Amino acid sequence: MKAEDRLGRQIEFILEIDRLKGVLRRTHLPMGRRENSAEHSWHLAMAALLLAEHANQKVDIGRVVQMLLVHDIVEVDAGDTFIYDEAAQEQKAVREWQAAERIFNLLPADQAAWVRGLWEEYEQQRTPEAHFAYAVDRFQPILLNYTCRGRMWREHGITASRVRARNRAIEAGSVRLWERTQALIEDAVRQGFLPE
Amino acid sequence: MKAEDRLGRQIEFILEIDRLKGVLRRTHLPMGRRENSAEHSWHLAMAALLLAEHANQKVDIGRVVQMLLVHDIVEVDAGDTFIYDEAAQEQKAVREWQAAERIFNLLPADQAAWVRGLWEEYEQQRTPEAHFAYAVDRFQPILLNYTCRGRMWREHGITASRVRARNRAIEAGSVRLWERTQALIEDAVRQGFLPE
Repeated sequence: MKAEDRLGRQIEFILEIDRLKGVLRRTHLPMGRRENSAEHSWHLAMAALLLAEHANQKVDIGRVVQMLLVHDIVEVDAGDTFIYDEAAQEQKAVREWQAAERIFNLLPADQAAWVRGLWEEYEQQRTPEAHFAYAVDRFQPILLNYTCRGRMWREHGITASRVRARNRAIEAGSVRLWERTQALIEDAVRQGFLPE
Repeated sequence: MKAEDRLGRQIEFILEIDRLKGVLRRTHLPMGRRENSAEHSWHLAMAALLLAEHANQKVDIGRVVQMLLVHDIVEVDAGDTFIYDEAAQEQKAVREWQAAERIFNLLPADQAAWVRGLWEEYEQQRTPEAHFAYAVDRFQPILLNYTCRGRMWREHGITASRVRARNRAIEAGSVRLWERTQALIEDAVRQGFLPE
């Protein structure tokens, strides 16, 4: 493959993933609109860079950041799957696998394998980097929901026990972030915008 | 400073930079709305990861990505400065310096210095990493403007010679991206959505 062909395929991929800016998540931003998955990915990458010292194990932060930049790209086809929608969660794996096949293979083969490897590492949750990336990906929405006085939780009738159950895996990446998560949940309950 | 205080300051910063999602750029997205600086930063970081092989010199891609994640944060206070507004460009440095002082210093001192260092490295354009990051930051809007058939160029009466003059520094980071940029400009002129 000529270098120029590689650049053409890379550009095609870069334009394709632009659509992630149109994938809306359930989370509301303090500015009053819902968050999209592209700006969410930027926010997570920044948060990971700044919170790395709180990971349970020393992590390769460069790989954590790459994983977070890449982890939602399959949503370009598969859409965002609401974490508290257990039925949708079941079909999520199939939809996202099909999306990965199509989108990553727009890239030259070596880069397709590399990006796919990052995505699979995140999904499989077997490395310290994947655990920490996941912890940040779960902590950020709770922080935003808390800041918006539980708007998303109230809209969807989410209780404190469900928030705890669905986000407990934060602990595998960062005990400290899990402690802070629990403190936020308790305070949200106390202030009355998250029912116990 | 206790670890818990550090986490509190880090969280305050993470919430403060959330506002970057509300800073609108002039660039239109193919989906029809304007791009914000947070999703733009994600898109640049992804593009840099994939285009690194086209940098003129071998670059530390981890630092390029960190620079791109950080480079627009000052816009939380200073707003986005339109690249073709030469008058606004003159005052940009002062506004952004004041923004950097306020925002970065929300962080613990060691992290404030680190993030500020990344931002200054990008602004000063003296390293191969800064040159390449800048090239990607200039190439991406041209690619989006081209894909939107010059909508932003037409709205603001931008000519091909101005696009060339304001983006020539792409060449310092990547000769190959500059060649592709020129080809996009020529094709836009030929198709009639960018006046020569």
